[in-house]
Amino acid sequence: MKIREIRLEDLDPVAFIKTQVQELKDTVGDGTAVVALSGGVDSSVVTMLGHRALGSRLKAYFIENGIMRTGEPQAIVAAFTRLGVRVQLVDARALFFRALKGITDPEEKREAITQTFYKTIFGPLVKRSGARFLLQGTNYTDVEETVAGIKRQHNVLAQLGIDTKKAYGYHVLEPVIQLRKTGVRMVGKALGLPKAIFERPPFPGPALAARVIGAVTPERVATVRAATRIVEEELARSGAFQYLAILHEDRVTGIRKGKREFGHQIEVRCWESTDAITGTPTHLSWPVLERLAKRITTEVKGVVSVTYNITAKPPSTIEAV
Amino acid sequence: MKIREIRLEDLDPVAFIKTQVQELKDTVGDGTAVVALSGGVDSSVVTMLGHRALGSRLKAYFIENGIMRTGEPQAIVAAFTRLGVRVQLVDARALFFRALKGITDPEEKREAITQTFYKTIFGPLVKRSGARFLLQGTNYTDVEETVAGIKRQHNVLAQLGIDTKKAYGYHVLEPVIQLRKTGVRMVGKALGLPKAIFERPPFPGPALAARVIGAVTPERVATVRAATRIVEEELARSGAFQYLAILHEDRVTGIRKGKREFGHQIEVRCWESTDAITGTPTHLSWPVLERLAKRITTEVKGVVSVTYNITAKPPSTIEAV
Repeated sequence: MKIREIRLEDLDPVAFIKTQVQELKDTVGDGTAVVALSGGVDSSVVTMLGHRALGSRLKAYFIENGIMRTGEPQAIVAAFTRLGVRVQLVDARALFFRALKGITDPEEKREAITQTFYKTIFGPLVKRSGARFLLQGTNYTDVEETVAGIKRQHNVLAQLGIDTKKAYGYHVLEPVIQLRKTGVRMVGKALGLPKAIFERPPFPGPALAARVIGAVTPERVATVRAATRIVEEELARSGAFQYLAILHEDRVTGIRKGKREFGHQIEVRCWESTDAITGTPTHLSWPVLERLAKRITTEVKGVVSVTYNITAKPPSTIEAV
Repeated sequence: MKIREIRLEDLDPVAFIKTQVQELKDTVGDGTAVVALSGGVDSSVVTMLGHRALGSRLKAYFIENGIMRTGEPQAIVAAFTRLGVRVQLVDARALFFRALKGITDPEEKREAITQTFYKTIFGPLVKRSGARFLLQGTNYTDVEETVAGIKRQHNVLAQLGIDTKKAYGYHVLEPVIQLRKTGVRMVGKALGLPKAIFERPPFPGPALAARVIGAVTPERVATVRAATRIVEEELARSGAFQYLAILHEDRVTGIRKGKREFGHQIEVRCWESTDAITGTPTHLSWPVLERLAKRITTEVKGVVSVTYNITAKPPSTIEAV
């Protein structure tokens, strides 16, 4: 089936919401649906659409995988609670770190996270829920990148360990698949989501694991989490499309109290983009760049060096891993 | 012996040259001296002082170690030939790459380069030359950093494999040891060295091997050499103290012709400093930063990402390795 993009100039958020809510009602009927809420704008909008259509017949889960940012799981669950949406927080940190142990290859890392998420955790949740419908936040850029071979094909049911032949009747519903990110944000605003969510910069699934080059351990995630917090605090008002901190595996020489210290390097990226397909580094001012370097090398243990990425996408990508 | 610094305000380059030349004449007498010319301002000034004092009784060697920049050995030898100084070019590339094979630790890398330079190559040259005097470009900052434990102690004779007890009569002469870099440059200018040499940004001994994180192979050196050439072309007019390109071992994801490419990252550093003891990143303009990234990712094979270091020294150091 060819998916038709709804361009921004053709998008009426209120009408879009009405259509999608009605479609979800018609499709799910008296049944129940599940959604994995990540706190990103796509899954947040889909959760709200599902909630409007199905009320308590939507079961929303937030999977705490141990590679989230400071206070993130609690903040997301609280925000949805305030909107009247009950979200179940599933603590799966130990399972994720066990699956990631010893893996340094980026593709194997993503695969371990995907497998743990779908097969080990979410698959069994879906089965136990008795729901036949899965809500998924796929957007139009995901579709394009999958077609182009940049993202891997997501056969969600197969990834959940659900045999689509045996389990006839399972359906994946993707209410925002015709929109790009900016459109999804407009719908999020119209749905009454807090600004922190509908304007939230992208933070992809592999989360902080994708911000660590090399092995993903609780200690290394803690390092990049601390750097991420500083980058987000300092760049929140930059108006940039996305900003991130990356912990390198390479060690570099530094100097502390007059003595040589072989330490860590954090790479900061901050992107101007409208669609994530192309992007350019934000022209941050020198006071901002120097404050970032100063804070990160002072507040994050073991970090002696900070760089800023100056490459456009392409040939760079938004994330490093 | 306590070494007394000659501060800039107390430095008269012409008088300094006269004093040092006379001292070299008095010390060496009818003997001969050797010097290893690297093309850096310190060894260039020392070579010129030695030439003024000793004429053809100074034997100058340029050791081509395979980790120099594009065209560097030929350019340095030609510049000194024009000044009437005969320099012997020693091709030792194979010996250095053999010694560096399989080494990734920065300290072991430096050690392999130092050992190969002194024990394998320069030591035998000194012995064959029959000279009892070695000219060395040690400056006042080297002394301070050795005292502070940042640089390792250089017992030059021991490193040459010369037993100082048996070989009584060997002497190391360090004519610029009382000067910092700026003073050495002023003396270089007064000696009639070309501007490209007396204003040359520092380029330490481990050369491009110190610009490669991880294994030093001819291929990896070729990558960082190509990036270095671009950085030097683009930043020559920046007026900065020092600028460099570093090849990381970490791979990052890039995208070429719509397909994912797991490629290399080059880190650019450019320093404002007067003494190399402290430094801050040069506030390069965005057009310059973007042109660097564009040229490096376009002209250097396999590079998909370029960063700019934004950290002050300390806690960074000038070089990464």
